[in-house]
Amino acid sequence: MTVSTISQPTLKRLPRYLGYLKSLGEAAPEYISATAIAEALGLGQVQVRKDLAQISNSGRPKVGYVTCQLIAEIESFLGYNNARDAVIVGAGRLGQALLGYEGFRSYGLNIVAAFDADPARTGVSDSGKPIFPMDELRHICRRLSVRIGVVTVPADQAQAVCDALVDAGIKAIWNFAPIHLHVPEGVLVQTENMAASLAMLSKHLTDVEDGQ
Amino acid sequence: MTVSTISQPTLKRLPRYLGYLKSLGEAAPEYISATAIAEALGLGQVQVRKDLAQISNSGRPKVGYVTCQLIAEIESFLGYNNARDAVIVGAGRLGQALLGYEGFRSYGLNIVAAFDADPARTGVSDSGKPIFPMDELRHICRRLSVRIGVVTVPADQAQAVCDALVDAGIKAIWNFAPIHLHVPEGVLVQTENMAASLAMLSKHLTDVEDGQ
Repeated sequence: MTVSTISQPTLKRLPRYLGYLKSLGEAAPEYISATAIAEALGLGQVQVRKDLAQISNSGRPKVGYVTCQLIAEIESFLGYNNARDAVIVGAGRLGQALLGYEGFRSYGLNIVAAFDADPARTGVSDSGKPIFPMDELRHICRRLSVRIGVVTVPADQAQAVCDALVDAGIKAIWNFAPIHLHVPEGVLVQTENMAASLAMLSKHLTDVEDGQ
Repeated sequence: MTVSTISQPTLKRLPRYLGYLKSLGEAAPEYISATAIAEALGLGQVQVRKDLAQISNSGRPKVGYVTCQLIAEIESFLGYNNARDAVIVGAGRLGQALLGYEGFRSYGLNIVAAFDADPARTGVSDSGKPIFPMDELRHICRRLSVRIGVVTVPADQAQAVCDALVDAGIKAIWNFAPIHLHVPEGVLVQTENMAASLAMLSKHLTDVEDGQ
């Protein structure tokens, strides 16, 4: 059972299971079944059962999983207890918000610094983290062996920033710019497509209004 | 040709086409083909051709689309030239960042106010927009006929906030909390699943490291 054998859809659902289990807090039952998780999240129980079977072998028929053990297993699988360092390029509003968002730690992401081409933005962020000029990107990423880069620059600068990150040894890019980034083989880009979400919301409202 | 007849995958790709076309700026050619767009975005040309045919009838064989006209057609289809008002609930770092992000205007979203349960956060945001106490949510949303709500509270508060938004007449919810929200029929929830993105990035890095 290695990380590589799991499917992408399963991998994307694991954080949802974890989020739900953690949201139960002190009210969490000692044991929880795949069926209960499926109902809470509006998913099919067969799917949840199969997903969990891939990352845990502690489930028992008719009993389910020990809740705290399942939480630990998912966290371990996702690498959340082994935080990875990341840098942000683009210290505008979104970049600053992400830089100061401590919640990423619980997802295994430790944002160590930001970079910006605008000298007026360099220095120390509101959250106390350093913002360096762009020409220090390569040096700092290589010295700290950072492998994750977060892109929060405008669309027209994103490809150049992406190229600079790749040159600095970054292997995984979390892209918030609304464009397609070209990267060499071995580098993964995960684009956070907020514009697609807004398009879905807008369409729904148009449908609702048309129906009135 | 109505909004309702378009498929979800097509709808989600339209903002990407638009983002690419706009990124060309002054260097944009007078005419552009579906093939050129497909190549730039790493998509199949048949797919792009079919998508564009659904929202425009101005494309010509061997010539393509008039670039500025295609931009206008996509914007019009997505309702970007007819901004909708939205409210944010949760004026923490992410909420404040979204509240001050003027870029949403170009996606047809006009964030008019935020709400927060913490009295210390109410008043006026850094970006000059009002942050009201939660008990004014219903009154203000109904008075302004706001139909879009953005949820940026922690997971354990998100369902209660979602219920309050629905009660206030909200029909479309943009959810940044990492949980599944239950809503009545007729209300759409679009969840921005950042944890899933982080899981994908983390897995890729594990694979890269295992391969070394």
